[in-house]
Amino acid sequence: MEWTKHDLLDLHDLSRAELELILKTAKSFKEVSSREVKKVPALRGKTVVTLFFEPSTRTRVSFELAAKRLSADTLNIAASGSSLSKGETVLDTALNIEAMNVDAIIVRHFSSGVPSILAENLRSSVINAGDGCRAHPTQALLDMFTIQERFGRIEGLKVGIVGDILHSRVARSNIHGLTRMGASVTVCGPSTLMPIGIEKLGVNVNYNLDDVIQESDVIMLLRIQKERQQEKYLPSIREYAKVFGIRQQRLQKAKKRVLIMHPGPTNRGVELTADIADGEHSVILEQVTNGVAIRMAILYLLLGTKK
Amino acid sequence: MEWTKHDLLDLHDLSRAELELILKTAKSFKEVSSREVKKVPALRGKTVVTLFFEPSTRTRVSFELAAKRLSADTLNIAASGSSLSKGETVLDTALNIEAMNVDAIIVRHFSSGVPSILAENLRSSVINAGDGCRAHPTQALLDMFTIQERFGRIEGLKVGIVGDILHSRVARSNIHGLTRMGASVTVCGPSTLMPIGIEKLGVNVNYNLDDVIQESDVIMLLRIQKERQQEKYLPSIREYAKVFGIRQQRLQKAKKRVLIMHPGPTNRGVELTADIADGEHSVILEQVTNGVAIRMAILYLLLGTKK
Amino acid sequence: MEWTKHDLLDLHDLSRAELELILKTAKSFKEVSSREVKKVPALRGKTVVTLFFEPSTRTRVSFELAAKRLSADTLNIAASGSSLSKGETVLDTALNIEAMNVDAIIVRHFSSGVPSILAENLRSSVINAGDGCRAHPTQALLDMFTIQERFGRIEGLKVGIVGDILHSRVARSNIHGLTRMGASVTVCGPSTLMPIGIEKLGVNVNYNLDDVIQESDVIMLLRIQKERQQEKYLPSIREYAKVFGIRQQRLQKAKKRVLIMHPGPTNRGVELTADIADGEHSVILEQVTNGVAIRMAILYLLLGTKK
Repeated sequence: MEWTKHDLLDLHDLSRAELELILKTAKSFKEVSSREVKKVPALRGKTVVTLFFEPSTRTRVSFELAAKRLSADTLNIAASGSSLSKGETVLDTALNIEAMNVDAIIVRHFSSGVPSILAENLRSSVINAGDGCRAHPTQALLDMFTIQERFGRIEGLKVGIVGDILHSRVARSNIHGLTRMGASVTVCGPSTLMPIGIEKLGVNVNYNLDDVIQESDVIMLLRIQKERQQEKYLPSIREYAKVFGIRQQRLQKAKKRVLIMHPGPTNRGVELTADIADGEHSVILEQVTNGVAIRMAILYLLLGTKK
Repeated sequence: MEWTKHDLLDLHDLSRAELELILKTAKSFKEVSSREVKKVPALRGKTVVTLFFEPSTRTRVSFELAAKRLSADTLNIAASGSSLSKGETVLDTALNIEAMNVDAIIVRHFSSGVPSILAENLRSSVINAGDGCRAHPTQALLDMFTIQERFGRIEGLKVGIVGDILHSRVARSNIHGLTRMGASVTVCGPSTLMPIGIEKLGVNVNYNLDDVIQESDVIMLLRIQKERQQEKYLPSIREYAKVFGIRQQRLQKAKKRVLIMHPGPTNRGVELTADIADGEHSVILEQVTNGVAIRMAILYLLLGTKK
Repeated sequence: MEWTKHDLLDLHDLSRAELELILKTAKSFKEVSSREVKKVPALRGKTVVTLFFEPSTRTRVSFELAAKRLSADTLNIAASGSSLSKGETVLDTALNIEAMNVDAIIVRHFSSGVPSILAENLRSSVINAGDGCRAHPTQALLDMFTIQERFGRIEGLKVGIVGDILHSRVARSNIHGLTRMGASVTVCGPSTLMPIGIEKLGVNVNYNLDDVIQESDVIMLLRIQKERQQEKYLPSIREYAKVFGIRQQRLQKAKKRVLIMHPGPTNRGVELTADIADGEHSVILEQVTNGVAIRMAILYLLLGTKK
């Protein structure tokens, strides 16, 4: 199988073979980051730009490191609060950056669909680093990589995604990727935060966390945004923690090898207790490590293999 | 001709032969940015610092990319709102940076003359990335490069510069550079924004945009700062757009090969309509591309050729 | 003598032999920064992160340059005002960064002890770039390097440290380092800013600046924080300048080869007059130059020599 895509916008666009190629490529790049000299010349002389309209140090740093370990030149543009968008459209801004002969633009934007608009209009490769509530493909890919590394497979596993499904681009991208890879996904969360018709994406809905814990091989927790409470989606954070938070006692009903995942940053005591975040089932830091490998793989496939 | 200057402060200081050397050098570096591996080792082991007292993502990124493509190490210092200038003078700040053995300091400052003061006191090369209303030499050079690339020459061309001439360092630097290269420059704009005695710089003044359009080979638009309206220089933005904005109908009287230039970011619907910004006469994105080549040339001439 | 330490937290932890090894290593790296090609491949493929919870352009830039001249990849994370610490502990943040396989984390934090907590919990090397009022080891090392370079030795010299001793991590680290190297240290400053029991650190206390000036080989001035006046530590900045500021007339009683040092940025007219800051005794800019060499030495010893 050869890679042919020009952009990474959403896992929905990728075939199972493409997903498998990404995971396989990431595996070899993970090894690079564990070397004494964590650097390969694959993208020497390429220019990779992060263009973030929403602040995110964590994701930006992961992409920047991935690019640097491939020997690309990197540029960071924080478009929120910068002088960039003085009356300019997002597309104008991106076209200006592209005009400097950049190879990839990694974009994060609070509005769903911005990466797709850019991809339609740019010659540079566009990588979606999160758009609105729509997609966050590299997060889902690193989650899938982590699951596959631990279980040796994704097919046939039961994955429970718990939390604010409504606003979560992480959930959406994981649903697309995991179901395509043959996992069975159940979503769980407050009914106010459950999108109507989510079943159409091929997932089960279960409002009872204890049921979900009992049957899952993987429990994927979503970060709760505290501002949702003010928006009346949640009665209180304390109430959320009580009903949807993972704590030791609750986990006793789980499978023996269950994985606890979280995209970070965690709210300790809300989505999960501190002992579980640091406990034997947690792979939260492993997810961060794998994030660099996945982003190296994506950059390499998009920029390093084309003529 | 050999390059001998130590700093780039203002095009006024450069001879025609020096301007031609810069344009010729930029031409060869433009080719570098179009390669698969956009990188040459010319400035390996040199340190280039951007020191911006005024925010400007666009110009900073262009210089940073230029330095990286020459293999220099780059450091960005945003002096506005940073901890840098705690009670220190600008010169003290620059001397501190220089003390770290940096080769070039690229400075942008809201006060006219700051780059000259630094150049008098530093051993590092100083590059003016815009000072007050005084000079923005690399912008003018990239404009000149773009014109020469399109017409094969600058000599004998008629260039109209339209907008807020009074506050524009872009206009001043272009006037110096273009007239020295033998172009004929006409400035055009609201009379409140036209400096008294501008003719002494060797330009024509014409308040009638339609006249200027008709006779020009190049129409260079200046960005209108919306705050000028509050300062009573402008009756309204809408009024400005009506009298000095470029739109399709107006352009019909222009020469067939007329170039429309703008230093960016454009206010679509003000200085020009969207269809013209994206139209066949516009070279706005080409200017951005050429900016990297010009800045590579300047860095190379200042740092790469001295003993 | 071989280097064995994993972190740099405080000079208190280092033996005289270790301090001497750092100073000797820095000497050879100072030479690198004076070359045409200021770069050695010692840390190629290593990742060095600055994680600053307190803003400091100056120290961050010095570390970043040091890392780049050793060919390491660098990442800057400004944790103050970033999206990083959304409800996360500092340790969680650092563990997340470490999970990306970084080799060193250079941390500055307003709370004393944070670097030590990180060092206990991380596999990456932790370098303290200043914590609360506790320690700023690289600043003291560069001061010691500057003294040794000028006098050929530290042993037996008399060093006066003048200013806000109470809040100064620079003073504390210098006291540890200088006394271990055999210098005799006298602290001097307003009694409200003199820690009770400071003599236990092996220093003399003298409230009379003229006495201290007369006997010292080195006068090390501390930056006065203007906010201390609001906190009632100081009657007024003017009063401080009169009693503890260095001016020409006062310096006439000093030794002929006396050195005037300041960690920067200086408040001209407060800690010292402008003519003294720029005068023959001042080594303020030399300190900045030596800062890069010391930081290269630390990074090299921590990362470049281990298996």
